Amino acid sequence: MTGRVSIVGLGPGSAALVTPEVAAALAEATDVVGYGPYVARVSSRPGLVLHPSDNRVELERAAHALDLAMAGRRVVVVSSGDPGVFAMASALFEAIERSPHYLAVEVAVLPGITAMLAAAARIGAPLGHDFCAINLSDNLKPWPLIERRLRLAAQADFAMAFYNPRSASRPHQFSQVLDILRDECGDARLIMFARAVTTPDEQIHTTTLGEAEPDMADMRTVVLLGNGATRRLGRYVYTPRSARAG
Amino acid sequence: MTGRVSIVGLGPGSAALVTPEVAAALAEATDVVGYGPYVARVSSRPGLVLHPSDNRVELERAAHALDLAMAGRRVVVVSSGDPGVFAMASALFEAIERSPHYLAVEVAVLPGITAMLAAAARIGAPLGHDFCAINLSDNLKPWPLIERRLRLAAQADFAMAFYNPRSASRPHQFSQVLDILRDECGDARLIMFARAVTTPDEQIHTTTLGEAEPDMADMRTVVLLGNGATRRLGRYVYTPRSARAG
Repeated sequence: MTGRVSIVGLGPGSAALVTPEVAAALAEATDVVGYGPYVARVSSRPGLVLHPSDNRVELERAAHALDLAMAGRRVVVVSSGDPGVFAMASALFEAIERSPHYLAVEVAVLPGITAMLAAAARIGAPLGHDFCAINLSDNLKPWPLIERRLRLAAQADFAMAFYNPRSASRPHQFSQVLDILRDECGDARLIMFARAVTTPDEQIHTTTLGEAEPDMADMRTVVLLGNGATRRLGRYVYTPRSARAG
Repeated sequence: MTGRVSIVGLGPGSAALVTPEVAAALAEATDVVGYGPYVARVSSRPGLVLHPSDNRVELERAAHALDLAMAGRRVVVVSSGDPGVFAMASALFEAIERSPHYLAVEVAVLPGITAMLAAAARIGAPLGHDFCAINLSDNLKPWPLIERRLRLAAQADFAMAFYNPRSASRPHQFSQVLDILRDECGDARLIMFARAVTTPDEQIHTTTLGEAEPDMADMRTVVLLGNGATRRLGRYVYTPRSARAG
């Protein structure tokens, strides 16, 4: 009998942000597959096999999960945040597309609290108007496309959330991102660095593009940029619901 | 003693998507404030006062919540989905900005599963690459700005999520939105209508822009548009993680 794969979002870190739906899927699982630090967030128990894997092996990890399900196991693939936002859901469907016999596996995607919304909540309401989410990693797309998207998003006056702003393999790129954003949005635009949000390591820093430095972001940071109307209000930052013609 | 206001997201409908953090805030509340249908999702209990209000009175509702907190109550303001995405968080900060004495109130925003991510999960992974979220209501912004954002987002090849696509007061506007999207993205682009997602009334329909009709959306629908690489795969729709130069 073919089993199933549930691709679940563990949220950004706090156990209080794991949905009951995801907790139930984990309670019924026989196998948990995922990047090591995310698998480490799942409590071990008798009968549950944990399969931690390295970073950047998403397709192999997805195929492993699908193979386990083909063998009748109840598999949960864990992502941080939401599995559909720069995480394992697309990788799993890519693995199915490459090997269509996997279409026999029942797949369920269970949403989670994605980092940008957890960060926004801690800060106030910086994404309270139209916004976009951009993955700054150029592993999977060319740099000119990232630059083009940044400029068009700025011209649309979207608030923005940036995932994977910086990694050891591309230390200079985020500096270029900040240059592009300053060019399009000006030095006064608010930018927020939210690191390890909802974990004990949480650090949140709000500044302006003029004051922003590349090393304010690391691999655990989601970066938010306000739109032209985003403002400080006491200890909060928020974006009004209304807008004038652009 | 001044109380506090927690602005919480109830998720799209299913109780299994309410985070433990939000459940705890509701368990400790003395007062729940919100749009009637959302307040109706909160279980009544002795000592809890429910304050349902009409649609489109967000600022009055926010001021009411803040007044209750100034009087020492523990107030929870409920939104559907996530409170920071086209919901009550920005309205509350607007109310504070208009009457800064409200800065004495401790405010917490507790994130929830927003409709676009719940819809995407049910469909597969249509938002698995860069994407944007646009509120199509022109109550709070001029129509030319909406059109401009749609065209720039299409030129950036974002996947898109549309909130508030259609209402009784503006029946013809969503037809114009579809015309703009067809003009920018072509007839073959995939579009998904997710109505009342995760509730007993859930209906999900995937089609192309060429076949899309305005009445496929209503007030309870979130609409997702694929990017140029979004494809069907069995009963799923997904967007690959990678992209070529635009």
